[in-house]
Amino acid sequence: MEIEEILDKLLNNEIDKAEAIKEIKGFEDLGFAKIDTNRKERCGQAEVVFCQGKTDQQVIKIINSLRENNPCIIGTRLEKDRYEKIKDYIPNPTYNEAGRILISGEAPSVDSNLKKVPILCAGTADIPVAEEAACICEIMGSPVCRIFDVGVAGLHRLLSFKDKFEDANVIIAVAGMEGALPSVVGGLVKCPVIGVPTSVGYGTNFKGLTTLFAMLNSCANGISVVNIDNGFSAGYIANQINRTNL
Amino acid sequence: MEIEEILDKLLNNEIDKAEAIKEIKGFEDLGFAKIDTNRKERCGQAEVVFCQGKTDQQVIKIINSLRENNPCIIGTRLEKDRYEKIKDYIPNPTYNEAGRILISGEAPSVDSNLKKVPILCAGTADIPVAEEAACICEIMGSPVCRIFDVGVAGLHRLLSFKDKFEDANVIIAVAGMEGALPSVVGGLVKCPVIGVPTSVGYGTNFKGLTTLFAMLNSCANGISVVNIDNGFSAGYIANQINRTNL
Amino acid sequence: MEIEEILDKLLNNEIDKAEAIKEIKGFEDLGFAKIDTNRKERCGQAEVVFCQGKTDQQVIKIINSLRENNPCIIGTRLEKDRYEKIKDYIPNPTYNEAGRILISGEAPSVDSNLKKVPILCAGTADIPVAEEAACICEIMGSPVCRIFDVGVAGLHRLLSFKDKFEDANVIIAVAGMEGALPSVVGGLVKCPVIGVPTSVGYGTNFKGLTTLFAMLNSCANGISVVNIDNGFSAGYIANQINRTNL
Amino acid sequence: MEIEEILDKLLNNEIDKAEAIKEIKGFEDLGFAKIDTNRKERCGQAEVVFCQGKTDQQVIKIINSLRENNPCIIGTRLEKDRYEKIKDYIPNPTYNEAGRILISGEAPSVDSNLKKVPILCAGTADIPVAEEAACICEIMGSPVCRIFDVGVAGLHRLLSFKDKFEDANVIIAVAGMEGALPSVVGGLVKCPVIGVPTSVGYGTNFKGLTTLFAMLNSCANGISVVNIDNGFSAGYIANQINRTNL
Amino acid sequence: MEIEEILDKLLNNEIDKAEAIKEIKGFEDLGFAKIDTNRKERCGQAEVVFCQGKTDQQVIKIINSLRENNPCIIGTRLEKDRYEKIKDYIPNPTYNEAGRILISGEAPSVDSNLKKVPILCAGTADIPVAEEAACICEIMGSPVCRIFDVGVAGLHRLLSFKDKFEDANVIIAVAGMEGALPSVVGGLVKCPVIGVPTSVGYGTNFKGLTTLFAMLNSCANGISVVNIDNGFSAGYIANQINRTNL
Amino acid sequence: MEIEEILDKLLNNEIDKAEAIKEIKGFEDLGFAKIDTNRKERCGQAEVVFCQGKTDQQVIKIINSLRENNPCIIGTRLEKDRYEKIKDYIPNPTYNEAGRILISGEAPSVDSNLKKVPILCAGTADIPVAEEAACICEIMGSPVCRIFDVGVAGLHRLLSFKDKFEDANVIIAVAGMEGALPSVVGGLVKCPVIGVPTSVGYGTNFKGLTTLFAMLNSCANGISVVNIDNGFSAGYIANQINRTNL
Amino acid sequence: MEIEEILDKLLNNEIDKAEAIKEIKGFEDLGFAKIDTNRKERCGQAEVVFCQGKTDQQVIKIINSLRENNPCIIGTRLEKDRYEKIKDYIPNPTYNEAGRILISGEAPSVDSNLKKVPILCAGTADIPVAEEAACICEIMGSPVCRIFDVGVAGLHRLLSFKDKFEDANVIIAVAGMEGALPSVVGGLVKCPVIGVPTSVGYGTNFKGLTTLFAMLNSCANGISVVNIDNGFSAGYIANQINRTNL
Amino acid sequence: MEIEEILDKLLNNEIDKAEAIKEIKGFEDLGFAKIDTNRKERCGQAEVVFCQGKTDQQVIKIINSLRENNPCIIGTRLEKDRYEKIKDYIPNPTYNEAGRILISGEAPSVDSNLKKVPILCAGTADIPVAEEAACICEIMGSPVCRIFDVGVAGLHRLLSFKDKFEDANVIIAVAGMEGALPSVVGGLVKCPVIGVPTSVGYGTNFKGLTTLFAMLNSCANGISVVNIDNGFSAGYIANQINRTNL
Repeated sequence: MEIEEILDKLLNNEIDKAEAIKEIKGFEDLGFAKIDTNRKERCGQAEVVFCQGKTDQQVIKIINSLRENNPCIIGTRLEKDRYEKIKDYIPNPTYNEAGRILISGEAPSVDSNLKKVPILCAGTADIPVAEEAACICEIMGSPVCRIFDVGVAGLHRLLSFKDKFEDANVIIAVAGMEGALPSVVGGLVKCPVIGVPTSVGYGTNFKGLTTLFAMLNSCANGISVVNIDNGFSAGYIANQINRTNL
Repeated sequence: MEIEEILDKLLNNEIDKAEAIKEIKGFEDLGFAKIDTNRKERCGQAEVVFCQGKTDQQVIKIINSLRENNPCIIGTRLEKDRYEKIKDYIPNPTYNEAGRILISGEAPSVDSNLKKVPILCAGTADIPVAEEAACICEIMGSPVCRIFDVGVAGLHRLLSFKDKFEDANVIIAVAGMEGALPSVVGGLVKCPVIGVPTSVGYGTNFKGLTTLFAMLNSCANGISVVNIDNGFSAGYIANQINRTNL
Repeated sequence: MEIEEILDKLLNNEIDKAEAIKEIKGFEDLGFAKIDTNRKERCGQAEVVFCQGKTDQQVIKIINSLRENNPCIIGTRLEKDRYEKIKDYIPNPTYNEAGRILISGEAPSVDSNLKKVPILCAGTADIPVAEEAACICEIMGSPVCRIFDVGVAGLHRLLSFKDKFEDANVIIAVAGMEGALPSVVGGLVKCPVIGVPTSVGYGTNFKGLTTLFAMLNSCANGISVVNIDNGFSAGYIANQINRTNL
Repeated sequence: MEIEEILDKLLNNEIDKAEAIKEIKGFEDLGFAKIDTNRKERCGQAEVVFCQGKTDQQVIKIINSLRENNPCIIGTRLEKDRYEKIKDYIPNPTYNEAGRILISGEAPSVDSNLKKVPILCAGTADIPVAEEAACICEIMGSPVCRIFDVGVAGLHRLLSFKDKFEDANVIIAVAGMEGALPSVVGGLVKCPVIGVPTSVGYGTNFKGLTTLFAMLNSCANGISVVNIDNGFSAGYIANQINRTNL
Repeated sequence: MEIEEILDKLLNNEIDKAEAIKEIKGFEDLGFAKIDTNRKERCGQAEVVFCQGKTDQQVIKIINSLRENNPCIIGTRLEKDRYEKIKDYIPNPTYNEAGRILISGEAPSVDSNLKKVPILCAGTADIPVAEEAACICEIMGSPVCRIFDVGVAGLHRLLSFKDKFEDANVIIAVAGMEGALPSVVGGLVKCPVIGVPTSVGYGTNFKGLTTLFAMLNSCANGISVVNIDNGFSAGYIANQINRTNL
Repeated sequence: MEIEEILDKLLNNEIDKAEAIKEIKGFEDLGFAKIDTNRKERCGQAEVVFCQGKTDQQVIKIINSLRENNPCIIGTRLEKDRYEKIKDYIPNPTYNEAGRILISGEAPSVDSNLKKVPILCAGTADIPVAEEAACICEIMGSPVCRIFDVGVAGLHRLLSFKDKFEDANVIIAVAGMEGALPSVVGGLVKCPVIGVPTSVGYGTNFKGLTTLFAMLNSCANGISVVNIDNGFSAGYIANQINRTNL
Repeated sequence: MEIEEILDKLLNNEIDKAEAIKEIKGFEDLGFAKIDTNRKERCGQAEVVFCQGKTDQQVIKIINSLRENNPCIIGTRLEKDRYEKIKDYIPNPTYNEAGRILISGEAPSVDSNLKKVPILCAGTADIPVAEEAACICEIMGSPVCRIFDVGVAGLHRLLSFKDKFEDANVIIAVAGMEGALPSVVGGLVKCPVIGVPTSVGYGTNFKGLTTLFAMLNSCANGISVVNIDNGFSAGYIANQINRTNL
Repeated sequence: MEIEEILDKLLNNEIDKAEAIKEIKGFEDLGFAKIDTNRKERCGQAEVVFCQGKTDQQVIKIINSLRENNPCIIGTRLEKDRYEKIKDYIPNPTYNEAGRILISGEAPSVDSNLKKVPILCAGTADIPVAEEAACICEIMGSPVCRIFDVGVAGLHRLLSFKDKFEDANVIIAVAGMEGALPSVVGGLVKCPVIGVPTSVGYGTNFKGLTTLFAMLNSCANGISVVNIDNGFSAGYIANQINRTNL
């Protein structure tokens, strides 16, 4: 509800003053965490729990609290051994190992009316990040098309899949090393390309920094980037774009 | 045409071998530049000329060559004094000073069926970059809504415009200094946000690098970024997203 | 005593030459360490022992030496397993696990006449640093108010606590990632804000460097910063400010 | 006014709905700038105009707009030649050349009941930044004590002024090069020290970055820092601290 | 002559002791410069004068001294206006403006028995660096083949020239921005590719540093790199490789 | 086959349409990897498998797939313990421990008609990288000459081997620390020198970055560099150069 | 005088209390500068004025004040045009253009009993820094021996001067680019070598940073370094070392 | 012997040609290492073995080879557990644990005619590096004076030792964090100061880089620096300086 609407309701005695104040707040306070209860209404998606850097107890409490108002909650960056330790305290848990993703509850099924999101990666070592992106897309309802190991050193491999990605609504291009994949892809398509630099490489790769900067300097148009190894973010945005105007 | 289609036509004698080869090439060679004549077909947009770093003669020749097959060509990063020097050698020139953009030919008019793209900037000094984004959006057909000087140090200013940006298809958030604007905006909306770091700041701002990294580390979801001061790229992508599924 | 005062006393035979020399020195020499015996007189606070990088034996000897002239000595950055190993050799030891702080002797109780210092942090993973700041404040006598997990991606959470921090003497704002919290808070209050960047984040966060620079570039006024993860320093300064003019 | 207070007034018909909405907004919109009309109420200080990066016309319009509700407005980082060009369009202008500060209107006089803020700088070349800090302190009402050129290579110079700074509420220590001044000062006093790194130096000084990092790594307690060359911010914060509990 | 050979001659009285010593020295001393008179014998190429950072008088003296023993001397990084000032004091001067190269004396003509060295560049703004490489190749006798503006955003342009570069002995690939050109080329050929990063770009390009690192991280084999904008070095090495085993 | 040749064959019914398409593709798709089956034809060398960052299963599958069309496949950066785990699943495996290189199948024997490639390294700690380069050279057919521990702090050691490297076709110079070896060597020879920076060093060596930059800034001519610790790449390129014009 | 000595004199009435205090202070206060009047007694050398970053008036006043107690004062980093403007206000001025050094008063003549300090530089462009070092050495009494343009790309040049530097007390080695000169020299001598990195270079030289780091990582022993382009400091230290034990 | 001397002897039949050649070589070749047998003659000190990065076998072989011509050989950076493993294969081994130094043979005793070298360090955590410097000094014959834990936050501690360091020939100042110690010491003495930055610190200390840069930017004269944590180098140089003119 907009402020004006709340004020109207207040003036019309439809809600009382306490309700008006609570409506503006929009979260529940657990002390060490403030559960963002109206995130879904505001952002179209319930809070996603970034598990890295939180203790097991914190993850358990936050997810349980969020589940009170949401049929399905996602936790990211959760290593398998941590999942094993906490799964008994999570309602309806499932786990995607490749994407290191915990799902509590029933994920909505993929919407087959949506276009497939092509998820390309340059090398075999980039697959974990690409998988994180793919899982998030699917959990949020967008079908995907995995096209892995199509780096630019063997250009013909990439080009042979052109029909699979050239009519997409949005493409995710995951790469480490020199990060040239988004540039080459961007020069072949009409839709936006989300570049995901990975920390795959050594020496002057600087854990993905070179790749990131290379992608930001792309000579092709239509390319935006997310943080290094951030498959989650790429998948999240790709799903947003894929649903535009629907 | 796809390769298979070309081969079919070749086998059916619809085209001859020379035509088949030329169709695969898809550019004209001026020596110092290769004019990408099928960019529009491939990418949905004719080649945009990045004028910075090219001589006046090179800009003139490239634009004239591109105009042979395109009703409208855009040149970016062209300072006003350079425009004055070359405009007589450009067909149908107009100039947008705020965005430093040259247009040769008739830009398609804004498509009023499209949603407005909100373009926010944090401070008055960020306006030139925001304007570049806005101009590109408009030239490519997307209407925009300019919301300038709404940085997070006076949060109420931003919040009062929430109704203008919360239902958009995509938002552009331009900011220098600590670059917090996209994070705050991203926490309020359902659509993707394109962060544009600017080189506004001093000391440890490092000409926008701090702002760029801050945006990449946003705690909000749905945020991707483009290169520092790259208003063009943000506008280009925003228009792509804004037309998705139409 | 000022030099002049010492000279007067010397001339008046109130002290002898040896005493005059010792008075200027003001420390005791243990070889591997020089115990700063007049730190409290000079700085208002006895020496705080930074335990990281010192051997267990060194920590034990330094604390015991300091305790000869001080009723309470603090050791920071002491991991729990180290505490377990050395506690039997420390007089009157207590340990704060969250803050990794050792206290030898009786800490002065919190002075209820002082205003509460609000200690805000952006995310759950920032809590350890925030706790270090909070413990130091309390040990030094300033009461605190913990407001955790109020990052800017869910702005309404922060805003709902405004009454708890807007009348403070000084605020500590702890954040990782893009570090926007101090900027937003600084725009809402009259008092100085101490920004504490944390090394929470990944990729281009660079272990807190991005956060640090973002805070230094804040568009809001009244914000100064301390080193990355340096909760101790923030708590120390906050207590200094909180007692100004009393 | 707090939200609750506004709602009460609304319910009691003391204000109407339009007034309630405007009260929450709290700014005036000039298009290229949003004038933050309730900054003073919120932050205790009217908006300060950072002139660098704004056009002359923008500075003139913003200051005139702010003056409608404020008896005195400050503009910082305004070079003298720019001041000469715009002063005729500014109400009641005065200019502080050393601090590059424009004052429109009558600055409140220094409050002699406040303690003096000692402003130390290491070398003669640091004086401009130290002056900016000093001017801001004075304009905001805190008296200052300038102690310039007391770098640590001639320690006796600094020590001879100890009586002038050791009883202060807060100290500003400005330094370039190796930035050791705040560390040495911090070891001598009870109050907080604000370190201001300057871009004075060459080679590996990196325009102040080395100085900044050195200050952040100070072995003394009680030191926080502001951005490189940011005398304004140091002065602003020093005045805030100087008035604490009054 | 090797040391052993000199000793033999000395023992056989073919040379005297003074000659033996001078033969080991191998340079002439002008005070501010030591003319490397046996560079050609040692390295196959007379000393090349790097003009940037030397005064006009120094350039004139060094070239004249070198000319005493060499029919042709090259000066690099000499801007046109400097050339105009010094040309009257240089024997047999000619100037290549595109490559900023001065030639004193008669350059040996191109050796048509050698294979052509393909010199590719990604964009029009990279041409000056590519030209420097091309000029040096030609002056040193290797014919070249210029293929400019074939960046990876329009891949078909590059691919259409494949027959011109795929059978070369060595390829020079000049690029700015994301520097993907050498990777793509390297994946298509058998010979080594010399990557030359240029400082063309902005924002996070860091004057070519991103491009350099991207090239060093190439996923293709056979790629080595030279310093940013160092067309001279690329041309020099390409000519060395082109003559191997001849 | 070139496109034109394929089209001719197609028109002449020598191949059918399916074969024409497959010929253009040139790889086999295993899902997680695209096996580049025509790399050898294109680049003169079958795909080399970079094992670091791939799982054991992935390495096994890729090598077995590549072996279908190649008599010998190389895997690099494979630690000994990993080799022990996978060797039973690799056809005809041998292992070079110093170079961490796996060979599957029969490596072609060294071609004694080729010149030896001198491989110099500055210190004993640089030997592993130098060995990687040497092994690759030998596997690809070029004989080598190892000259280790000839750093510039004992110049006479290097100079005494001059006859072993001064007539080579190409030299590999491996060094850590200040990386001066390629500069000194480059000043003594006619052929190109490939500098390989190693991560040997500490403090400001930054894991080889200082060494890399020093090599890029060499005052000698003829020096190109590869990524830090990249012995593979240096060996690969050296073999390419060594075979030029044969 | 030591404190004890002062106290003795005070007790013996040889000096009064005011004199005792003044003796401890040891400087004169001009407001914007504190003249360090006992620097010569403390450090063996009167204060040297770093002119860069000071106004003309400040330089004039400081030098005149220092001259009251010193027969000769040095100003460094003073460009020639500035010297022309201020020389009429300086007592007994002379100017060394190559070293950009102002001398006020009579410099002590070179002490011929001291050993010569060899000052080597790698290239002609390094001469200005080398000259600054040489001038400072001479002004402070140490004779020097200039050996310029002996970079490691033509090793024989350096080696032919070995007899001129191998018996020195200390050597200054000035170099830009890869900075290998100190390493090679350090491997040939018994005495300490002071490395002076210069900002000569381009691309990845980073204005001397690469050179600095290369020198710090020298594989030779006995090498310490000073800041980039800091010829003054090298000359100052060399003279200190050259006089040790005399 | 100089070349001329060798030639004379050769001509006079005092040595034969083989001896002449060997004399110029001056090392013994073990394959993986070239033993620099005339280092002591050239540099006044036999080769010091940097053990880090070498295998146990390599260390053993190199030391044994060096011992053939030297009564005492030093190995640095050897951890205690490694020493335990290799000591049985080293002739006459002793070990200094604090300095991580292995001595094979009889170290010459300290020369009591030399002045003591004061070795200062700022904090207790800097002691290991300071000890390495002290051990090297002593092994090479210079007596030392350890003054530890005299950082600038408690200035009086440092000042009370002034009589112990102010008449030295050379001072070593070891510090981490902000690295201010050399600046303060340099302002108090006549002799050169060798600054040794340590990697003690956290956050923006960057493992000693901030400390290094701070020392290079010292406002005091007479300060040169060595690499981070490089106590060996500081001790080596201090001993060189301490013996100057003796």
